[in-house]
Amino acid sequence: MSRWEPNARGRLEQAAMELYSEHGFEQTTVTEIARRAGLTERTFFRHFSDKREVLFAGSSTLQDLLVDTLAGVPGSAAPIDAVAAALDAAATVFRDRHEQARQRQKIINANAELQERELIKLARLSAAISETLRRRGVAEPAASLAAEAGIAVFKVTFERWIDGPGSRDMSQLIREVLDELKAVTAGG
Amino acid sequence: MSRWEPNARGRLEQAAMELYSEHGFEQTTVTEIARRAGLTERTFFRHFSDKREVLFAGSSTLQDLLVDTLAGVPGSAAPIDAVAAALDAAATVFRDRHEQARQRQKIINANAELQERELIKLARLSAAISETLRRRGVAEPAASLAAEAGIAVFKVTFERWIDGPGSRDMSQLIREVLDELKAVTAGG
Repeated sequence: MSRWEPNARGRLEQAAMELYSEHGFEQTTVTEIARRAGLTERTFFRHFSDKREVLFAGSSTLQDLLVDTLAGVPGSAAPIDAVAAALDAAATVFRDRHEQARQRQKIINANAELQERELIKLARLSAAISETLRRRGVAEPAASLAAEAGIAVFKVTFERWIDGPGSRDMSQLIREVLDELKAVTAGG
Repeated sequence: MSRWEPNARGRLEQAAMELYSEHGFEQTTVTEIARRAGLTERTFFRHFSDKREVLFAGSSTLQDLLVDTLAGVPGSAAPIDAVAAALDAAATVFRDRHEQARQRQKIINANAELQERELIKLARLSAAISETLRRRGVAEPAASLAAEAGIAVFKVTFERWIDGPGSRDMSQLIREVLDELKAVTAGG
């Protein structure tokens, strides 16, 4: 096999998602993923540390994008508005990836270990957001609360987006869910 | 050893907490816990499924208390106020247990697996709260958002309570943190 493997990463991702959907995450081996992609196991491990990482490789991109956007929002913005701007930037990661996101979520929902990994990912995102807010001069507990509120908005938005038609604009949904959170926390 | 073992559960809990604090959670065995408590391993397993469960045995009590209180709040209350009332009831679980709660948190913070288990516990509490709200007629996404907001308040309150002096009233802290969340989500 030639060392030059066009889009090896993308082919491995696609093969893995197909196999996880067809046979389940647990039943799928790295050998099978590599074979389906027409690549070697060695190539797989050049791109991913294990079969779980195929599903979570985007986490650090998402976190970097959230943190970088948040750090760049003008200091005059209220913490929750700064977080909303960061979520809005993160939404671009999912543009034109509705079907992939749906498929990934279905795989995760079917496996307790993957659900735990997803919770850890969200907890890390929340910690990264609150840390960035503190560096922007936001005091505690406001920094933690704005971060947790942002993650709550992200979770609920994501579920609605996944369940809806692919054409729905995630940015619009973020605004709607954030407005709903404001109404909910304002109370009766 | 007699079958009648006064306060076996409490003695096992205390022995486990001491050993986890002294030697770390991973290094401690069930054999050592039972020995320190002056009981048999068999007795340990009559009370706990494994050494991790000693730290999480209170989770279902907490969840039942939250859900039962929430279900009993008058239907006229706004969802977030109903959740706040449930958190307030849950606070009674920790009354006079500040030192134990601190010790437990320190053990959990020192171990990644226990931190994951704690995240799962909180995710389950959130799911139980939103389910109870839906049964009370609260629509989505308000039910999920009120539940997530409640868990955020609980997490932040708990951290502040643990870090503060044992004399601080958790109910008072819940109200302060909830007010802060309201201010944060209201934005600038």
